[in-house]
Amino acid sequence: MTDKLITLEPTVISLYENRKYNTLKDILVTLNPADISFLLEKLPEHSLPLLFRLLPKELAAETFVEMESDMQEILIKGFSDAELKEVLNELYVDDTVDIIEEMPANVVKRILSQSDPQTRKEINVILRYPEDSAGSIMTTEFVELKAEMTIKVALEHIRKTATEKETINVCYVTDNSRHLVGFLSLRTIILSKDDTVIGDIMETNVISVSTLEDQEKVAEYFDKYDFIVIPVVDKDNRLVGIVTVDDALDVLKEEATEDISKIAAITPSDKPYLKTSVFEIFKGRIPWLLLLMISSTFTGLIITHFENALAAQVTLTAFIPMLMGTGGNSGSQSSVTVIRSLSLNELDFKDIIYVVWKEIRVAVLCGLTLAICNYPKLLIVDRVTSSIALVICVALAFTVFVAKLVGCTLPMMAKKVGFDPTVMASPLITTIVDAISLLIYFAVATTILGI
Amino acid sequence: MTDKLITLEPTVISLYENRKYNTLKDILVTLNPADISFLLEKLPEHSLPLLFRLLPKELAAETFVEMESDMQEILIKGFSDAELKEVLNELYVDDTVDIIEEMPANVVKRILSQSDPQTRKEINVILRYPEDSAGSIMTTEFVELKAEMTIKVALEHIRKTATEKETINVCYVTDNSRHLVGFLSLRTIILSKDDTVIGDIMETNVISVSTLEDQEKVAEYFDKYDFIVIPVVDKDNRLVGIVTVDDALDVLKEEATEDISKIAAITPSDKPYLKTSVFEIFKGRIPWLLLLMISSTFTGLIITHFENALAAQVTLTAFIPMLMGTGGNSGSQSSVTVIRSLSLNELDFKDIIYVVWKEIRVAVLCGLTLAICNYPKLLIVDRVTSSIALVICVALAFTVFVAKLVGCTLPMMAKKVGFDPTVMASPLITTIVDAISLLIYFAVATTILGI
Repeated sequence: MTDKLITLEPTVISLYENRKYNTLKDILVTLNPADISFLLEKLPEHSLPLLFRLLPKELAAETFVEMESDMQEILIKGFSDAELKEVLNELYVDDTVDIIEEMPANVVKRILSQSDPQTRKEINVILRYPEDSAGSIMTTEFVELKAEMTIKVALEHIRKTATEKETINVCYVTDNSRHLVGFLSLRTIILSKDDTVIGDIMETNVISVSTLEDQEKVAEYFDKYDFIVIPVVDKDNRLVGIVTVDDALDVLKEEATEDISKIAAITPSDKPYLKTSVFEIFKGRIPWLLLLMISSTFTGLIITHFENALAAQVTLTAFIPMLMGTGGNSGSQSSVTVIRSLSLNELDFKDIIYVVWKEIRVAVLCGLTLAICNYPKLLIVDRVTSSIALVICVALAFTVFVAKLVGCTLPMMAKKVGFDPTVMASPLITTIVDAISLLIYFAVATTILGI
Repeated sequence: MTDKLITLEPTVISLYENRKYNTLKDILVTLNPADISFLLEKLPEHSLPLLFRLLPKELAAETFVEMESDMQEILIKGFSDAELKEVLNELYVDDTVDIIEEMPANVVKRILSQSDPQTRKEINVILRYPEDSAGSIMTTEFVELKAEMTIKVALEHIRKTATEKETINVCYVTDNSRHLVGFLSLRTIILSKDDTVIGDIMETNVISVSTLEDQEKVAEYFDKYDFIVIPVVDKDNRLVGIVTVDDALDVLKEEATEDISKIAAITPSDKPYLKTSVFEIFKGRIPWLLLLMISSTFTGLIITHFENALAAQVTLTAFIPMLMGTGGNSGSQSSVTVIRSLSLNELDFKDIIYVVWKEIRVAVLCGLTLAICNYPKLLIVDRVTSSIALVICVALAFTVFVAKLVGCTLPMMAKKVGFDPTVMASPLITTIVDAISLLIYFAVATTILGI
C-alpha cells in the first residue's frame, strides 16, 4: 500500500460519512483500480453498490476485477441484469473465470446467463481445464495474425480488434488450421516497413506450453525466458490461449506460500489468513499435529527402553531436548535448502551424490564446531563430569551428521518416486531424526559410561 | 528445462565431440538464448569461447546475459577487447550492471574501460544505489516523450530510438526538467490518430517508485497493479529509469527463498546451492545452530530443577519430547502463517487483536483434539496410570495454547519494533515454547500427582 493511500483513507471515509459523493468520485477517478478497490474496502459494505455506480463504466469494471471475492459477490448480488452485463462486457475472459471460480453456484449461473454466447463458450472451455493447469489460467483474447499478411494489413487488423485483447504486445501467427507457426512483438511490427510480409520477419522458434501443463511450470518459463506473454496450445499444437506475466507473478507467490505452509506442517490454503475461518485453519493444521504427536511415540518408547540407564544417570535427561532440538534444526536446514533448490529446479535427482558429499562436509564442520563449543560450556556452566560431557558432545556430533544426511537425501528420494518433497521438510524428518538422535545418545552413553 | 532440451543435450554433446561445429551452430541458432546457455553449460569449459564465437553477434550477447556468472567470467577473460566491446554494445545497462556485480575487480575494470562513455556514466549511476534498491535494479533505457508531441512525431521518435530501449511497450512523458508527468502504452499510441497530441491522451495518474525504494516493494507494486514496467524517479520526481517485470519475478523468487531460509534458521545466500561452497553453507548455518544449542540450556536447567520429581516418576521423562515437539510444531504453524501474511502485506500490526482472537480459538480446538486423542492412546498403548495420562493431556492442551499465542504475537511485535519477523519463525519461538512447555508440564505434574 502506498503512502498516498494511507493519507487518502481518512479523507475518503470522512467524505463518505458527510455524503460528499461528488467530491469522493472526483478523488476516486484519479486513482488506479487496485487503489480504488483498496479504499472501497474500508467503507461500510452496504455502501458498496452506491459508490461503485459513481465510477465511469470502464474504471468500474477494472476496479471490480481487483476486489476480493466477497466484495465482488455483494456487488453482483446488488447488480441489475443490465449492470451485470455491462461489467462483464468490460472484463477479460480469464478474469471472469477467476471470479466464477470463487462464487457460489447461483451467482455463477447468473454470470453465465448474462455473458454473451461467444464469451460463455470461452468461459466454459477454460472452466473445463484442471485446476492449476495452463488452460485454467489462460485467456482466449490474443491477437492472431497470418504469415502472408503485410505489416500494413496486420496493423489494420490489430487496430480493429485491439480493444478486446488482453495484450497486443506480442502477436501470434497461425496457419489455416490454427497451428501456431510463429510470433512477433508489437515492437517489431512498429519498426518494420508497411509492405514487409509477417512470414519473413516473424520469430519461428516459438516456446509454448500445453493446456494441461502445470501452472508452476508456466511461471518457471516466464522466469527463465523473461517473457511477458506465453502462448498455450492444445495437443495438436493449435493456439488456444495466452497466459500473461501478471498471472505468472500470482502463481509464483502462491507456490511460495504453499511451500512455506508445507514446511511448517500446514495443509496449504489458497485463501488469505484474514479470510480463512477458524475451522478451516484448524482443519489445515490438526492432521499434521496428530501425525507428529503419534509418531513421537517412538521417541517415548526409546526413552522408556533406556529408563534404567536414565535412572542411573539422571543428568543425561536434562540434555535430551538440546540434543533432539539441535538434530531437528540441523536436519531441517539441509532438507529445506534441498527442497527449495528442487522447487527452483536448480537440483535434480541425478545430483544426489554431489549433494550428499557436500552435506557430509558441512555436517562434519557443524558437528565438530558444536561439540567443541559445547564441551567447556557443559563443564563450566552445567557442571557435569567430564565423561558425561564427552558422551553429550560425541552424541551431538553424530546426531548432526545423521540429521543432515537424512535431511538432504529424503526430499530428493521423495521427488524421485513422485512424492511432494516439501512434505518431507518437517514431519517425517523430525520424527526420524528425533528417534535416531536418542538411539545415538543412549548408545554413546552406555559405551562410554558403561551403564 | 523443457523436454526438447533434454532430447537435444546428448545430440549437442556428440556433435561437439565429433567437431561438427557447423551442424552444432545450425541447431543452436534455432534456440532461445536461455536454452543455448543451458546447453553450453553442459560442454567442457575450455570450449566455451570457441562455441560462443559461432553464434551471430546479437544472439551471442543475449546468450551471454543468460549465463551463470562463472561462465561469463571465463568468456570475458577469453575475449579480445574488440569482442568484449561488441558484446557490451548489445547489452542493456541493467544487465551489464548485474554482470559487473558478480565479477572480480580486474574484470569490472576491463568491462568499464570497454563501455562507451555514456554507458559507463549510466553504469556508475546505477552502481551507486544501495543493494536491493529500485535504483540498483533499474535500467536507464526507456522511451521518453513530451506532452506536446503528436502521435506521428512520437512514433517517429520511437522508431528512431527503439533499438536501444529495453522496452517500448510503455512510454513515459516528461516536462523540460525531466519531471515525470504521464505515461502511455504503445497500444494507446497505435490505436490513436496521427495528429492526436500526447498530452491529451496520456495517463496522468502515474505510479512510480523512488530510486531508494526496496526492491521487495517494487515487486509488490508489479503484483498489485499488474504492471509490466514501472518508472523510477529521484527525490525531485525526475524520471531516471524503469524496472521491467522480469526483474520483479527475480525479486519475488529471491525474497521467497530468503524467507524460507530464515524460517529454517539459515542465513540467506543469494547464490544457488550448487554454486555455494561448503564453507559458505557452513557459515550460513552454524550461528543459528550455536544460538539454538546455547538457548536450550534453559530447558536443561528446568529439567535439572525438577530432577527429583522426574526421579519419583520416571515415566514422565518419556513424554517430554512429545510435549516439546507438539508445542514447537503448534507454535511454528502459527508463526509461519503470520510471517507469510506479513510478507504479503495481508496483515499489519493493527490486526493483532483479531489475529490473537483467531489463534486462541484455533489453539483451543487443536489442544482439545490432541488431548482427547492422546488420552486413550496413553492408557492403552503406553500403559501409563490414568493420573499420569491426565497430567500429560492437560499439559499438552495448555502447551498448544501458549505455543500458538506466542507464535502469532512475536512476529507481529517484531515487525512493529522494526525487526525482521521472519527470524522469529524458528529460533526464538522454539526456545521460548520449549521452556514454557516444560514449566507447564512440571506445574501440572506436581499439582495433580502431588510430587
